[in-house]
Amino acid sequence: MAFSFSITHCDAGSNARTGVLKLSHGEVETPAFMPVGTLGSIKAISPETAWDIGYRLILANAYHLYLRPGHELISKCGGLHGFMNWPGGILTDSGGFQVFSLAKLRKIDDQGVVFQSHIDGSRRLFTPELSLSVQEALGADIIMCLDDVRGYPATESEARDAVNRTTEWASRTITAKKKVDPALFAIVQGSMFPDLRRISAEGLHSLGFDGYAIGGLSVGEPHELMVEMIDATTPYLPTTKPRYLMGVGKPQDILESIIRGVDLFDCVLPTRNARNANLFTSTGTLNIRNARYREDQSPVDSNCGCALCRNYSRAYLRHLFQEREIFGFTLATIHNLNFYFRLISDIKCAIRENRLNSMVKQYSSQTEEIND
Amino acid sequence: MAFSFSITHCDAGSNARTGVLKLSHGEVETPAFMPVGTLGSIKAISPETAWDIGYRLILANAYHLYLRPGHELISKCGGLHGFMNWPGGILTDSGGFQVFSLAKLRKIDDQGVVFQSHIDGSRRLFTPELSLSVQEALGADIIMCLDDVRGYPATESEARDAVNRTTEWASRTITAKKKVDPALFAIVQGSMFPDLRRISAEGLHSLGFDGYAIGGLSVGEPHELMVEMIDATTPYLPTTKPRYLMGVGKPQDILESIIRGVDLFDCVLPTRNARNANLFTSTGTLNIRNARYREDQSPVDSNCGCALCRNYSRAYLRHLFQEREIFGFTLATIHNLNFYFRLISDIKCAIRENRLNSMVKQYSSQTEEIND
Repeated sequence: MAFSFSITHCDAGSNARTGVLKLSHGEVETPAFMPVGTLGSIKAISPETAWDIGYRLILANAYHLYLRPGHELISKCGGLHGFMNWPGGILTDSGGFQVFSLAKLRKIDDQGVVFQSHIDGSRRLFTPELSLSVQEALGADIIMCLDDVRGYPATESEARDAVNRTTEWASRTITAKKKVDPALFAIVQGSMFPDLRRISAEGLHSLGFDGYAIGGLSVGEPHELMVEMIDATTPYLPTTKPRYLMGVGKPQDILESIIRGVDLFDCVLPTRNARNANLFTSTGTLNIRNARYREDQSPVDSNCGCALCRNYSRAYLRHLFQEREIFGFTLATIHNLNFYFRLISDIKCAIRENRLNSMVKQYSSQTEEIND
Repeated sequence: MAFSFSITHCDAGSNARTGVLKLSHGEVETPAFMPVGTLGSIKAISPETAWDIGYRLILANAYHLYLRPGHELISKCGGLHGFMNWPGGILTDSGGFQVFSLAKLRKIDDQGVVFQSHIDGSRRLFTPELSLSVQEALGADIIMCLDDVRGYPATESEARDAVNRTTEWASRTITAKKKVDPALFAIVQGSMFPDLRRISAEGLHSLGFDGYAIGGLSVGEPHELMVEMIDATTPYLPTTKPRYLMGVGKPQDILESIIRGVDLFDCVLPTRNARNANLFTSTGTLNIRNARYREDQSPVDSNCGCALCRNYSRAYLRHLFQEREIFGFTLATIHNLNFYFRLISDIKCAIRENRLNSMVKQYSSQTEEIND
């Protein structure tokens, strides 16, 4: 089944919209947050648990799965859906960001990027065509074009090179694409230069993709700059196609991006923070290792109905973390993913009722760090 | 509700029997294997998962929970049942074995045992009365008397001292017991001396307990010696009371003990082995890290209907272990606990049909290591 995206409602007071992505593996309401399952597992929970929370689209990483266990193996095992027993949609990142952030001795030219594997130091060449074919072998529902990612800060000249190369690579990816069903998304680059963001967005738009990602953000820049770059990008993307802000982010970042017309997100924050004992709650974040929770018989968040908050006290979760019990990581992950899912659900509701602006204002004022 | 034990069937060809334990928290069919939840969590799974597999009785450790987070805290949080959200029965070990195996600078006399905490080196005195009161505070359904455990090998004189002290301490535990509902079990010692095993069993029997454990085994002695000690103990225990072989063991050990009249077991083997990638199957054990499983699309055990074997290949589980993904530990634990539960179910069935002898013979011949 071919990919489609339809907008179901536009917020009267902002650029936010609700929509539906149709994928080979079911439908996904947008805005949507994708839990990260880099290696074919959302860390510390089962795919079934993610499904039960309500998630229908997750992210996996072509770079990692290409290196180990290998995309050919996963292809033989029924693709990533069969391998990890996930019935919903899968978006795979192209590896552009991982080569930039994880690999050693990165050397980039027009052909592709030569790098040393972060696992065994072996020398590898990643090209737009290889990234595509890895993602096709994995059976992704949404494939990302390989992009040229630069760090923060980057010079204008570096950023311009990266934009040009990213557009060229995106064009080659269209040419190389063999499978009809998966959607193909391109990634806007341009570092922190509004003009380059526009050029990148226009260049990719003219090639025509199923969706557009905003990449190269959340790489260390100030929050305001990130928001500015979103504003410098979205006007040059077609309104009818989904927009995906990669690697973002905190609840407040997500709210401020959705109000600017972003539809999709992924981030390790809810799952990684969970394993570090950091929990999102309706009144702010808390670190459950803090001694103040030692005898605290209340749930982590009395406004939350997740498996953690329904059944366990802060004192018990703190005990599990003190003892490094695996079940603590699982419970905290369930909680944080529930928090993110409910946040997005609340946002969708606010969009439908044309009151996202007031939700954003209210959220900013009521949420404060209650701990540490 | 007071504790009771009733025997429902005796195997015509052996000393094996089926029965029912009635506890304050439900009923438990015997023979039964108790998953180990030392710190108030069965490692890598939720209590709900253990319940869904079929377990109704688990073990926790007074020694660990006394040291951290403390029995008073757990008592405030609704006892261990409320703290860990476990609706079934809980048996708590007294700490005798843990003081012996984990603590430093153990010094034992008639009053009790002085030891250094394995966590912070603090000096503690554990007495039969304290162990009881810790277990009462935890809200255990079955309380174990503090015992004097010696290593292997022990001299006859050491072993005799330990037997005498264990009987004396068991007697003090009866005197100190405040709560009516929990069952109180005593622990037979005697190292590898049949006469001392008899003396210990008779001494404890004359005091009158709700059940009797066989302790001080599986401490490094040969398998044959362990079996010999069970044979030297059970004839001196009342047939109408449950018998619990502590810390045992492998499937074959369990079979050979049940045929000798043992009703209860606990062991870290299924859960610890799972986290070490060792899986029990109907055709032997396998280590899923082995390279031969890299592309193996078959389930871990095609005769198993657990969540792992229904939904995932050996190749996927191997991948999770290669990457140290937490979900791998969870799946392997679910599988091994399913294996143990099914083993015990099959044994119960064989007892009811008076064919346990032939099951034991068949099991010994068909099971072989298929790997490593």
